[in-house]
Amino acid sequence: MTLAHSRPLDSLTNLSSSPFSLQIAPIPNIPEISEGDDLGVIIAKCLENAQLSLTDGDILTSAHKIFSKAEGAVVNMADVTPGQEAMRYAEELNKDPRKIEVILSQSKRVIRSFKRPEQNEGTMICEHRLGFISANAAVDESNTGEDGSLILLPHNPDASAKAVCDYLSRHFNARIGFAITDTFGRPWRIGQVNVAVGLADLPATIREQGNLDAHGRLLSVTEPAFADELAAASGLVIRKSAQTPVVLFRGLDWQKTESAAQDLLRPNKENMFK
Amino acid sequence: MTLAHSRPLDSLTNLSSSPFSLQIAPIPNIPEISEGDDLGVIIAKCLENAQLSLTDGDILTSAHKIFSKAEGAVVNMADVTPGQEAMRYAEELNKDPRKIEVILSQSKRVIRSFKRPEQNEGTMICEHRLGFISANAAVDESNTGEDGSLILLPHNPDASAKAVCDYLSRHFNARIGFAITDTFGRPWRIGQVNVAVGLADLPATIREQGNLDAHGRLLSVTEPAFADELAAASGLVIRKSAQTPVVLFRGLDWQKTESAAQDLLRPNKENMFK
Repeated sequence: MTLAHSRPLDSLTNLSSSPFSLQIAPIPNIPEISEGDDLGVIIAKCLENAQLSLTDGDILTSAHKIFSKAEGAVVNMADVTPGQEAMRYAEELNKDPRKIEVILSQSKRVIRSFKRPEQNEGTMICEHRLGFISANAAVDESNTGEDGSLILLPHNPDASAKAVCDYLSRHFNARIGFAITDTFGRPWRIGQVNVAVGLADLPATIREQGNLDAHGRLLSVTEPAFADELAAASGLVIRKSAQTPVVLFRGLDWQKTESAAQDLLRPNKENMFK
Repeated sequence: MTLAHSRPLDSLTNLSSSPFSLQIAPIPNIPEISEGDDLGVIIAKCLENAQLSLTDGDILTSAHKIFSKAEGAVVNMADVTPGQEAMRYAEELNKDPRKIEVILSQSKRVIRSFKRPEQNEGTMICEHRLGFISANAAVDESNTGEDGSLILLPHNPDASAKAVCDYLSRHFNARIGFAITDTFGRPWRIGQVNVAVGLADLPATIREQGNLDAHGRLLSVTEPAFADELAAASGLVIRKSAQTPVVLFRGLDWQKTESAAQDLLRPNKENMFK
Protein backbone atom coordinates (compact mmCIF):
# COMPACT_ATOMS: atom_id res chain seq x y z
CA MET A 1 0.00 0.00 0.00
CA THR A 2 1.29 3.41 -0.91
CA LEU A 3 0.28 6.41 1.12
CA ALA A 4 0.88 9.98 0.06
CA HIS A 5 -0.07 12.79 2.35
CA SER A 6 1.36 16.18 3.04
CA ARG A 7 4.35 16.31 5.34
CA PRO A 8 5.99 18.92 7.52
CA LEU A 9 8.01 21.52 5.69
CA ASP A 10 11.44 22.56 6.77
CA SER A 11 13.29 24.48 4.10
CA LEU A 12 10.78 26.64 2.33
CA THR A 13 12.93 29.71 2.21
CA ASN A 14 13.79 29.49 -1.46
CA LEU A 15 10.35 28.59 -2.70
CA SER A 16 8.59 31.12 -0.49
CA SER A 17 10.63 33.83 -2.09
CA SER A 18 9.69 32.67 -5.57
CA PRO A 19 7.59 35.36 -7.18
CA PHE A 20 4.90 32.90 -8.32
CA SER A 21 4.41 30.44 -5.51
CA LEU A 22 1.08 28.91 -4.52
CA GLN A 23 0.57 27.46 -1.06
CA ILE A 24 -2.05 24.87 -0.18
CA ALA A 25 -2.70 23.88 3.41
CA PRO A 26 -5.50 22.00 5.14
CA ILE A 27 -7.11 23.84 8.05
CA PRO A 28 -6.20 21.80 11.12
CA ASN A 29 -8.59 20.45 13.76
CA ILE A 30 -11.97 20.81 12.05
CA PRO A 31 -14.23 19.01 14.56
CA GLU A 32 -16.83 16.33 13.81
CA ILE A 33 -19.80 18.22 12.36
CA SER A 34 -23.42 17.73 13.48
CA GLU A 35 -26.73 18.97 12.12
CA GLY A 36 -27.25 22.64 12.90
CA ASP A 37 -23.56 23.50 13.24
CA ASP A 38 -22.57 26.89 11.80
CA LEU A 39 -19.70 26.08 9.45
CA GLY A 40 -18.67 29.71 8.96
CA VAL A 41 -18.16 30.16 12.69
CA ILE A 42 -16.38 26.81 13.01
CA ILE A 43 -13.99 27.41 10.09
CA ALA A 44 -13.17 30.92 11.34
CA LYS A 45 -12.41 29.54 14.80
CA CYS A 46 -10.19 26.75 13.41
CA LEU A 47 -8.27 29.29 11.32
CA GLU A 48 -7.76 31.54 14.33
CA ASN A 49 -6.75 28.60 16.52
CA ALA A 50 -4.08 27.87 13.91
CA GLN A 51 -3.08 31.55 14.01
CA LEU A 52 -4.20 32.02 10.43
CA SER A 53 -6.38 34.76 9.05
CA LEU A 54 -7.78 35.11 5.55
CA THR A 55 -6.44 37.73 3.21
CA ASP A 56 -7.55 39.12 -0.17
CA GLY A 57 -7.30 36.47 -2.86
CA ASP A 58 -7.42 33.45 -0.54
CA ILE A 59 -9.58 30.54 -1.65
CA LEU A 60 -11.04 27.81 0.54
CA THR A 61 -12.26 24.44 -0.66
CA SER A 62 -14.26 22.02 1.45
CA ALA A 63 -15.33 18.43 1.03
CA HIS A 64 -19.13 18.51 0.76
CA LYS A 65 -19.65 16.11 3.64
CA ILE A 66 -19.34 18.65 6.42
CA PHE A 67 -21.95 20.80 4.66
CA SER A 68 -24.24 17.79 4.21
CA LYS A 69 -23.92 16.94 7.89
CA ALA A 70 -24.43 20.52 9.07
CA GLU A 71 -27.54 20.81 6.89
CA GLY A 72 -28.96 17.41 7.80
CA ALA A 73 -28.58 16.03 4.28
CA VAL A 74 -28.10 12.60 5.83
CA VAL A 75 -30.56 9.71 5.60
CA ASN A 76 -30.83 6.93 8.14
CA MET A 77 -31.26 3.68 6.22
CA ALA A 78 -33.74 2.42 8.82
CA ASP A 79 -36.12 5.20 7.77
CA VAL A 80 -36.16 4.22 4.07
CA THR A 81 -38.80 2.00 2.43
CA PRO A 82 -37.61 0.92 -1.02
CA GLY A 83 -40.06 0.98 -3.93
CA GLN A 84 -40.38 -1.46 -6.81
CA GLU A 85 -37.77 0.17 -9.02
CA ALA A 86 -35.24 0.05 -6.17
CA MET A 87 -36.04 -3.61 -5.53
CA ARG A 88 -35.41 -4.41 -9.20
CA TYR A 89 -32.02 -2.66 -9.23
CA ALA A 90 -31.15 -4.29 -5.89
CA GLU A 91 -31.44 -7.74 -7.41
CA GLU A 92 -29.43 -6.78 -10.51
CA LEU A 93 -26.67 -5.06 -8.54
CA ASN A 94 -26.53 -6.95 -5.22
CA LYS A 95 -27.01 -3.64 -3.48
CA ASP A 96 -29.13 -2.61 -0.47
CA PRO A 97 -32.54 -1.57 -1.91
CA ARG A 98 -32.84 1.20 0.68
CA LYS A 99 -29.58 2.72 -0.58
CA ILE A 100 -30.87 2.44 -4.14
CA GLU A 101 -34.12 4.14 -3.13
CA VAL A 102 -32.08 7.08 -1.84
CA ILE A 103 -29.90 7.13 -4.98
CA LEU A 104 -33.04 7.23 -7.15
CA SER A 105 -34.49 10.03 -5.01
CA GLN A 106 -31.40 12.11 -5.80
CA SER A 107 -31.39 11.36 -9.54
CA LYS A 108 -33.03 12.76 -12.63
CA ARG A 109 -32.19 9.53 -14.45
CA VAL A 110 -30.04 6.42 -14.29
CA ILE A 111 -27.61 6.51 -17.19
CA ARG A 112 -26.22 3.03 -16.71
CA SER A 113 -26.08 0.36 -14.04
CA PHE A 114 -23.71 -2.60 -13.90
CA LYS A 115 -22.04 -5.09 -11.63
CA ARG A 116 -18.71 -6.39 -12.77
CA PRO A 117 -17.69 -9.91 -11.70
CA GLU A 118 -15.06 -8.60 -9.31
CA GLN A 119 -17.50 -6.19 -7.65
CA ASN A 120 -19.39 -7.25 -4.56
CA GLU A 121 -21.91 -4.48 -5.11
CA GLY A 122 -22.80 -2.87 -8.44
CA THR A 123 -22.68 0.76 -9.51
CA MET A 124 -25.33 3.12 -10.85
CA ILE A 125 -24.16 6.00 -13.04
CA CYS A 126 -26.76 8.72 -12.50
CA GLU A 127 -27.55 12.24 -13.49
CA HIS A 128 -28.00 13.93 -10.13
CA ARG A 129 -30.94 16.31 -9.68
CA LEU A 130 -28.34 19.13 -9.83
CA GLY A 131 -27.01 17.86 -13.18
CA PHE A 132 -23.77 16.21 -12.06
CA ILE A 133 -23.08 12.83 -13.65
CA SER A 134 -21.39 10.47 -11.23
CA ALA A 135 -21.55 7.10 -9.51
CA ASN A 136 -24.51 6.48 -7.18
CA ALA A 137 -25.79 10.08 -7.44
CA ALA A 138 -23.06 11.16 -5.01
CA VAL A 139 -24.70 9.17 -2.19
CA ASP A 140 -21.92 8.15 0.15
CA GLU A 141 -21.57 5.72 3.02
CA SER A 142 -18.13 6.45 4.40
CA ASN A 143 -17.26 8.77 7.29
CA THR A 144 -20.87 9.33 8.30
CA GLY A 145 -20.16 9.08 11.99
CA GLU A 146 -22.74 6.35 12.58
CA ASP A 147 -23.58 3.04 10.94
CA GLY A 148 -26.37 2.72 8.45
CA SER A 149 -26.65 6.30 7.29
CA LEU A 150 -26.08 7.84 3.88
CA ILE A 151 -24.71 11.27 3.07
CA LEU A 152 -26.28 13.22 0.20
CA LEU A 153 -25.04 16.32 -1.55
CA PRO A 154 -26.19 19.53 0.18
CA HIS A 155 -29.57 20.75 -1.07
CA ASN A 156 -28.06 23.74 -2.91
CA PRO A 157 -24.24 23.61 -2.77
CA ASP A 158 -23.79 27.01 -4.47
CA ALA A 159 -25.97 28.67 -1.82
CA SER A 160 -24.15 26.80 0.95
CA ALA A 161 -20.78 27.90 -0.39
CA LYS A 162 -21.98 31.49 -0.77
CA ALA A 163 -23.27 31.71 2.81
CA VAL A 164 -19.98 30.54 4.32
CA CYS A 165 -17.96 32.62 1.84
CA ASP A 166 -19.86 35.76 2.78
CA TYR A 167 -19.52 35.06 6.52
CA LEU A 168 -15.76 34.50 6.27
CA SER A 169 -15.28 37.50 3.96
CA ARG A 170 -16.94 39.76 6.52
CA HIS A 171 -15.25 38.12 9.50
CA PHE A 172 -11.75 38.53 8.08
CA ASN A 173 -12.56 41.59 5.96
CA ALA A 174 -11.04 39.88 2.94
CA ARG A 175 -12.09 39.11 -0.65
CA ILE A 176 -12.13 35.32 -0.76
CA GLY A 177 -13.62 32.52 -2.85
CA PHE A 178 -15.10 29.22 -1.74
CA ALA A 179 -15.68 25.88 -3.48
CA ILE A 180 -17.49 22.78 -2.22
CA THR A 181 -16.11 19.55 -3.69
CA ASP A 182 -17.03 15.92 -4.17
CA THR A 183 -14.94 12.96 -5.26
CA PHE A 184 -15.83 11.62 -8.73
CA GLY A 185 -14.64 8.76 -10.90
CA ARG A 186 -13.82 9.39 -14.55
CA PRO A 187 -15.08 7.50 -17.61
CA TRP A 188 -11.77 6.39 -19.03
CA ARG A 189 -9.27 6.94 -16.28
CA ILE A 190 -8.60 4.94 -13.13
CA GLY A 191 -9.04 6.51 -9.72
CA GLN A 192 -10.96 9.49 -8.48
CA VAL A 193 -10.37 13.22 -8.38
CA ASN A 194 -12.28 15.93 -6.56
CA VAL A 195 -14.49 18.24 -8.63
CA ALA A 196 -16.38 21.39 -7.69
CA VAL A 197 -20.08 20.94 -6.87
CA GLY A 198 -20.67 24.35 -5.30
CA LEU A 199 -19.06 27.72 -6.04
CA ALA A 200 -19.03 31.14 -4.42
CA ASP A 201 -17.41 34.17 -6.06
CA LEU A 202 -14.91 31.99 -7.98
CA PRO A 203 -14.67 31.65 -11.76
CA ALA A 204 -15.77 28.15 -12.82
CA THR A 205 -13.45 28.28 -15.82
CA ILE A 206 -10.88 30.72 -17.18
CA ARG A 207 -11.63 31.69 -20.74
CA GLU A 208 -8.36 32.09 -22.58
CA GLN A 209 -10.18 32.70 -25.85
CA GLY A 210 -8.85 35.89 -27.29
CA ASN A 211 -5.57 35.81 -25.42
CA LEU A 212 -2.39 35.46 -27.43
CA ASP A 213 0.09 32.68 -26.87
CA ALA A 214 3.79 33.37 -26.43
CA HIS A 215 4.17 33.56 -30.21
CA GLY A 216 1.41 36.12 -30.63
CA ARG A 217 -1.03 33.57 -32.05
CA LEU A 218 -4.65 33.64 -30.91
CA LEU A 219 -5.40 30.94 -28.34
CA SER A 220 -8.73 29.70 -29.60
CA VAL A 221 -10.07 26.87 -27.51
CA THR A 222 -8.36 26.86 -24.14
CA GLU A 223 -10.68 27.14 -21.15
CA PRO A 224 -9.03 25.72 -18.02
CA ALA A 225 -11.58 24.45 -15.52
CA PHE A 226 -10.26 26.63 -12.70
CA ALA A 227 -12.71 25.41 -10.02
CA ASP A 228 -12.00 21.77 -10.86
CA GLU A 229 -8.24 22.43 -10.80
CA LEU A 230 -8.70 23.77 -7.26
CA ALA A 231 -10.84 20.78 -6.29
CA ALA A 232 -8.33 18.26 -7.67
CA ALA A 233 -5.43 20.06 -5.99
CA SER A 234 -7.23 19.95 -2.64
CA GLY A 235 -7.13 16.16 -2.91
CA LEU A 236 -3.33 16.30 -2.61
CA VAL A 237 -3.57 17.54 0.98
CA ILE A 238 -6.87 15.94 2.05
CA ARG A 239 -6.83 12.35 3.14
CA LYS A 240 -10.14 10.85 4.18
CA SER A 241 -8.69 9.23 7.25
CA ALA A 242 -7.18 12.50 8.44
CA GLN A 243 -10.34 14.64 8.79
CA THR A 244 -9.08 17.73 7.02
CA PRO A 245 -12.00 18.64 4.77
CA VAL A 246 -11.21 22.34 4.45
CA VAL A 247 -8.19 23.50 2.45
CA LEU A 248 -6.73 26.99 2.09
CA PHE A 249 -5.14 28.19 -1.19
CA ARG A 250 -2.96 31.29 -1.03
CA GLY A 251 -1.10 32.87 -3.92
CA LEU A 252 -3.54 32.70 -6.84
CA ASP A 253 -4.67 35.78 -8.74
CA TRP A 254 -8.33 35.63 -9.80
CA GLN A 255 -11.29 37.90 -10.30
CA LYS A 256 -14.47 37.76 -8.23
CA THR A 257 -17.06 36.16 -10.50
CA GLU A 258 -20.77 35.42 -10.27
CA SER A 259 -20.75 31.70 -10.92
CA ALA A 260 -22.36 28.39 -10.10
CA ALA A 261 -21.19 24.80 -10.23
CA GLN A 262 -23.68 24.31 -13.09
CA ASP A 263 -21.33 26.44 -15.19
CA LEU A 264 -19.04 23.40 -15.21
CA LEU A 265 -21.68 21.10 -16.71
CA ARG A 266 -21.64 20.43 -20.41
CA PRO A 267 -25.13 20.63 -21.93
CA ASN A 268 -26.30 17.17 -23.01
CA LYS A 269 -26.21 18.22 -26.66
CA GLU A 270 -22.52 19.02 -26.28
CA ASN A 271 -21.57 15.72 -24.70
CA MET A 272 -18.49 15.04 -26.80
CA PHE A 273 -17.91 11.51 -25.69
CA LYS A 274 -21.28 9.76 -25.58
CA MET B 1 -12.48 37.93 -19.77
CA THR B 2 -11.28 36.59 -16.45
CA LEU B 3 -7.64 35.77 -15.95
CA ALA B 4 -6.33 33.77 -13.05
CA HIS B 5 -2.62 33.29 -12.62
CA SER B 6 -0.30 32.99 -9.69
CA ARG B 7 0.72 36.24 -8.05
CA PRO B 8 3.58 37.38 -5.87
CA LEU B 9 3.39 36.31 -2.25
CA ASP B 10 4.03 38.65 0.58
CA SER B 11 2.76 37.32 3.90
CA LEU B 12 3.45 33.62 3.90
CA THR B 13 4.76 33.45 7.41
CA ASN B 14 1.74 31.79 8.94
CA LEU B 15 1.13 29.31 6.18
CA SER B 16 4.78 28.39 5.83
CA SER B 17 4.83 27.38 9.44
CA SER B 18 1.76 25.17 9.01
CA PRO B 19 2.80 21.59 9.54
CA PHE B 20 1.03 20.35 6.38
CA SER B 21 1.63 22.95 3.75
CA LEU B 22 2.20 22.19 0.08
CA GLN B 23 3.96 24.68 -2.17
CA ILE B 24 3.60 24.79 -5.93
CA ALA B 25 5.78 27.05 -8.03
CA PRO B 26 6.55 27.25 -11.73
CA ILE B 27 10.25 27.14 -12.61
CA PRO B 28 11.02 30.56 -14.06
CA ASN B 29 12.68 31.30 -17.39
CA ILE B 30 12.47 27.95 -19.17
CA PRO B 31 13.74 28.92 -22.63
CA GLU B 32 12.13 28.11 -25.99
CA ILE B 33 12.98 24.43 -26.60
CA SER B 34 14.36 23.07 -29.88
CA GLU B 35 14.94 19.55 -31.17
CA GLY B 36 17.96 17.98 -29.54
CA ASP B 37 17.86 20.10 -26.39
CA ASP B 38 18.70 18.24 -23.17
CA LEU B 39 15.76 18.99 -20.89
CA GLY B 40 17.44 17.61 -17.76
CA VAL B 41 20.35 20.00 -18.18
CA ILE B 42 18.04 22.91 -19.01
CA ILE B 43 15.69 22.36 -16.05
CA ALA B 44 18.63 21.97 -13.65
CA LYS B 45 20.11 25.23 -14.93
CA CYS B 46 16.79 27.10 -14.61
CA LEU B 47 16.39 25.83 -11.05
CA GLU B 48 19.90 26.93 -10.17
CA ASN B 49 19.43 30.32 -11.83
CA ALA B 50 16.38 30.74 -9.56
CA GLN B 51 18.55 29.70 -6.60
CA LEU B 52 16.48 26.57 -6.12
CA SER B 53 17.70 23.05 -5.64
CA LEU B 54 15.68 19.85 -5.46
CA THR B 55 15.29 18.01 -2.20
CA ASP B 56 13.93 14.57 -1.20
CA GLY B 57 10.21 14.34 -1.90
CA ASP B 58 10.06 17.12 -4.49
CA ILE B 59 7.92 16.45 -7.55
CA LEU B 60 8.18 18.16 -10.92
CA THR B 61 5.47 18.24 -13.57
CA SER B 62 6.00 19.42 -17.12
CA ALA B 63 3.67 20.19 -19.97
CA HIS B 64 4.44 17.60 -22.66
CA LYS B 65 5.18 20.17 -25.33
CA ILE B 66 8.75 20.87 -24.31
CA PHE B 67 9.44 17.12 -24.44
CA SER B 68 7.77 16.83 -27.84
CA LYS B 69 9.87 19.70 -29.16
CA ALA B 70 13.12 18.40 -27.68
CA GLU B 71 12.44 14.95 -29.17
CA GLY B 72 11.33 16.25 -32.55
CA ALA B 73 7.75 14.96 -32.15
CA VAL B 74 6.64 17.86 -34.32
CA VAL B 75 5.25 17.54 -37.85
CA ASN B 76 5.43 20.26 -40.47
CA MET B 77 2.07 20.35 -42.22
CA ALA B 78 3.80 20.98 -45.55
CA ASP B 79 5.33 17.50 -45.31
CA VAL B 80 2.00 15.68 -44.91
CA THR B 81 0.03 14.07 -47.75
CA PRO B 82 -3.48 13.22 -46.59
CA GLY B 83 -4.99 9.87 -47.53
CA GLN B 84 -8.59 9.07 -48.46
CA GLU B 85 -9.82 8.59 -44.90
CA ALA B 86 -8.40 11.97 -43.91
CA MET B 87 -10.03 13.61 -46.94
CA ARG B 88 -13.39 12.14 -45.94
CA TYR B 89 -13.15 13.43 -42.36
CA ALA B 90 -11.92 16.79 -43.64
CA GLU B 91 -15.13 17.32 -45.54
CA GLU B 92 -17.31 16.22 -42.61
CA LEU B 93 -15.43 18.36 -40.07
CA ASN B 94 -14.22 21.40 -42.06
CA LYS B 95 -10.72 20.56 -40.87
CA ASP B 96 -7.35 20.59 -42.62
CA PRO B 97 -6.95 17.06 -44.09
CA ARG B 98 -3.22 17.14 -43.34
CA LYS B 99 -3.97 17.69 -39.66
CA ILE B 100 -6.46 14.82 -39.79
CA GLU B 101 -3.86 12.58 -41.41
CA VAL B 102 -1.53 13.27 -38.48
CA ILE B 103 -4.36 12.69 -35.96
CA LEU B 104 -5.14 9.35 -37.61
CA SER B 105 -1.44 8.41 -37.56
CA GLN B 106 -1.45 8.88 -33.77
CA SER B 107 -4.68 6.95 -33.17
CA LYS B 108 -5.69 3.35 -32.66
CA ARG B 109 -9.28 4.30 -33.50
CA VAL B 110 -11.63 7.23 -33.89
CA ILE B 111 -14.33 6.94 -31.21
CA ARG B 112 -16.49 9.77 -32.46
CA SER B 113 -16.24 12.77 -34.75
CA PHE B 114 -18.57 15.74 -34.85
CA LYS B 115 -18.86 19.38 -35.82
CA ARG B 116 -21.37 21.39 -33.84
CA PRO B 117 -23.03 24.37 -35.57
CA GLU B 118 -21.07 26.87 -33.49
CA GLN B 119 -17.75 25.20 -34.26
CA ASN B 120 -15.65 26.42 -37.16
CA GLU B 121 -13.69 23.18 -37.17
CA GLY B 122 -14.92 19.81 -35.89
CA THR B 123 -13.45 17.51 -33.27
CA MET B 124 -12.32 13.88 -33.40
CA ILE B 125 -12.40 11.90 -30.15
CA CYS B 126 -9.67 9.31 -30.56
CA GLU B 127 -7.98 6.52 -28.69
CA HIS B 128 -4.32 7.50 -28.94
CA ARG B 129 -1.79 4.78 -29.76
CA LEU B 130 -0.75 4.99 -26.07
CA GLY B 131 -4.34 4.38 -24.92
CA PHE B 132 -5.35 7.90 -23.88
CA ILE B 133 -8.81 8.97 -24.99
CA SER B 134 -8.93 12.64 -25.87
CA ALA B 135 -9.73 15.19 -28.54
CA ASN B 136 -7.70 15.06 -31.76
CA ALA B 137 -5.30 12.38 -30.43
CA ALA B 138 -3.49 15.06 -28.43
CA VAL B 139 -2.28 16.70 -31.66
CA ASP B 140 -1.88 20.38 -30.91
CA GLU B 141 -1.35 23.53 -32.95
CA SER B 142 -0.71 26.19 -30.32
CA ASN B 143 2.65 27.43 -29.11
CA THR B 144 4.61 25.48 -31.71
CA GLY B 145 7.04 28.27 -32.36
CA GLU B 146 6.40 28.28 -36.11
CA ASP B 147 3.34 28.37 -38.30
CA GLY B 148 1.94 25.25 -39.84
CA SER B 149 3.38 22.65 -37.53
CA LEU B 150 1.69 20.18 -35.20
CA ILE B 151 2.94 18.92 -31.85
CA LEU B 152 2.43 15.25 -31.02
CA LEU B 153 2.80 13.50 -27.71
CA PRO B 154 6.37 12.31 -27.06
CA HIS B 155 7.04 8.83 -28.45
CA ASN B 156 7.21 7.23 -24.98
CA PRO B 157 6.30 9.79 -22.29
CA ASP B 158 7.08 7.43 -19.39
CA ALA B 159 10.60 6.88 -20.72
CA SER B 160 11.04 10.61 -21.32
CA ALA B 161 9.92 11.41 -17.78
CA LYS B 162 12.19 8.71 -16.34
CA ALA B 163 15.29 9.98 -18.16
CA VAL B 164 14.87 13.54 -16.89
CA CYS B 165 13.85 12.33 -13.43
CA ASP B 166 17.00 10.21 -13.17
CA TYR B 167 19.21 13.05 -14.40
CA LEU B 168 17.77 15.55 -11.92
CA SER B 169 17.85 13.00 -9.05
CA ARG B 170 21.55 12.45 -9.63
CA HIS B 171 22.30 16.12 -10.24
CA PHE B 172 20.67 17.28 -7.00
CA ASN B 173 21.24 14.01 -5.10
CA ALA B 174 17.56 13.91 -4.17
CA ARG B 175 14.70 11.41 -4.42
CA ILE B 176 12.22 13.13 -6.75
CA GLY B 177 9.29 12.23 -8.96
CA PHE B 178 8.36 13.53 -12.40
CA ALA B 179 5.13 13.67 -14.39
CA ILE B 180 4.55 14.79 -17.98
CA THR B 181 1.09 16.28 -18.54
CA ASP B 182 -1.34 17.13 -21.31
CA THR B 183 -4.52 19.19 -21.28
CA PHE B 184 -7.70 17.13 -21.78
CA GLY B 185 -11.41 17.90 -22.05
CA ARG B 186 -13.92 15.88 -20.04
CA PRO B 187 -17.05 14.11 -21.27
CA TRP B 188 -19.63 15.85 -19.10
CA ARG B 189 -17.85 18.85 -17.69
CA ILE B 190 -16.93 22.16 -19.31
CA GLY B 191 -13.33 23.23 -19.62
CA GLN B 192 -10.04 21.37 -19.57
CA VAL B 193 -7.76 20.02 -16.87
CA ASN B 194 -4.25 18.65 -17.14
CA VAL B 195 -3.78 14.91 -16.76
CA ALA B 196 -0.64 12.78 -16.47
CA VAL B 197 0.59 11.17 -19.71
CA GLY B 198 4.04 10.14 -18.48
CA LEU B 199 5.23 9.11 -15.01
CA ALA B 200 8.57 8.50 -13.35
CA ASP B 201 8.87 7.08 -9.83
CA LEU B 202 5.47 8.51 -8.77
CA PRO B 203 2.42 6.50 -7.76
CA ALA B 204 -0.30 6.82 -10.42
CA THR B 205 -2.99 6.37 -7.78
CA ILE B 206 -3.08 6.02 -4.01
CA ARG B 207 -4.92 2.89 -2.97
CA GLU B 208 -6.79 3.63 0.21
CA GLN B 209 -8.37 0.19 0.18
CA GLY B 210 -7.70 -1.37 3.52
CA ASN B 211 -7.20 1.92 5.32
CA LEU B 212 -9.65 2.86 8.02
CA ASP B 213 -11.62 6.06 7.99
CA ALA B 214 -11.76 8.36 11.01
CA HIS B 215 -14.50 6.16 12.51
CA GLY B 216 -12.52 2.95 12.15
CA ARG B 217 -14.60 1.76 9.19
CA LEU B 218 -12.83 0.14 6.24
CA LEU B 219 -12.48 2.52 3.29
CA SER B 220 -13.38 0.24 0.43
CA VAL B 221 -13.33 2.03 -2.88
CA THR B 222 -11.27 5.16 -2.55
CA GLU B 223 -8.34 5.41 -4.94
CA PRO B 224 -7.34 9.03 -5.49
CA ALA B 225 -5.64 9.55 -8.85
CA PHE B 226 -2.52 11.10 -7.34
CA ALA B 227 -0.71 11.77 -10.64
CA ASP B 228 -3.81 13.42 -12.13
CA GLU B 229 -4.26 15.51 -8.98
CA LEU B 230 -0.69 16.76 -9.48
CA ALA B 231 -1.35 17.42 -13.16
CA ALA B 232 -4.56 19.35 -12.48
CA ALA B 233 -2.90 21.36 -9.71
CA SER B 234 -0.06 22.33 -12.06
CA GLY B 235 -2.67 24.02 -14.23
CA LEU B 236 -3.28 26.54 -11.45
CA VAL B 237 0.20 28.02 -11.88
CA ILE B 238 0.78 27.36 -15.60
CA ARG B 239 -0.70 29.76 -18.08
CA LYS B 240 -0.07 29.03 -21.74
CA SER B 241 0.84 32.58 -22.53
CA ALA B 242 3.41 32.71 -19.75
CA GLN B 243 5.80 29.93 -20.85
CA THR B 244 6.12 28.17 -17.52
CA PRO B 245 5.75 24.52 -18.48
CA VAL B 246 7.66 23.05 -15.52
CA VAL B 247 6.18 23.18 -12.02
CA LEU B 248 7.74 22.22 -8.69
CA PHE B 249 5.70 20.65 -5.87
CA ARG B 250 7.24 20.68 -2.39
CA GLY B 251 5.66 19.31 0.76
CA LEU B 252 4.01 16.05 -0.31
CA ASP B 253 4.81 12.73 1.30
CA TRP B 254 4.82 9.84 -1.18
CA GLN B 255 6.59 6.57 -1.83
CA LYS B 256 8.81 5.91 -4.84
CA THR B 257 6.76 3.62 -7.08
CA GLU B 258 7.35 1.80 -10.36
CA SER B 259 4.54 3.16 -12.45
CA ALA B 260 3.45 4.21 -15.90
CA ALA B 261 0.80 6.57 -17.19
CA GLN B 262 -1.01 3.49 -18.51
CA ASP B 263 -1.80 2.66 -14.88
CA LEU B 264 -4.29 5.54 -15.07
CA LEU B 265 -6.18 4.06 -18.01
CA ARG B 266 -9.37 2.12 -17.35
CA PRO B 267 -9.48 -1.09 -19.39
CA ASN B 268 -12.18 -0.83 -22.07
CA LYS B 269 -14.21 -3.54 -20.35
CA GLU B 270 -14.33 -1.37 -17.23
CA ASN B 271 -15.48 1.78 -18.99
CA MET B 272 -18.19 2.75 -16.53
CA PHE B 273 -19.74 5.49 -18.57
CA LYS B 274 -20.01 4.26 -22.13
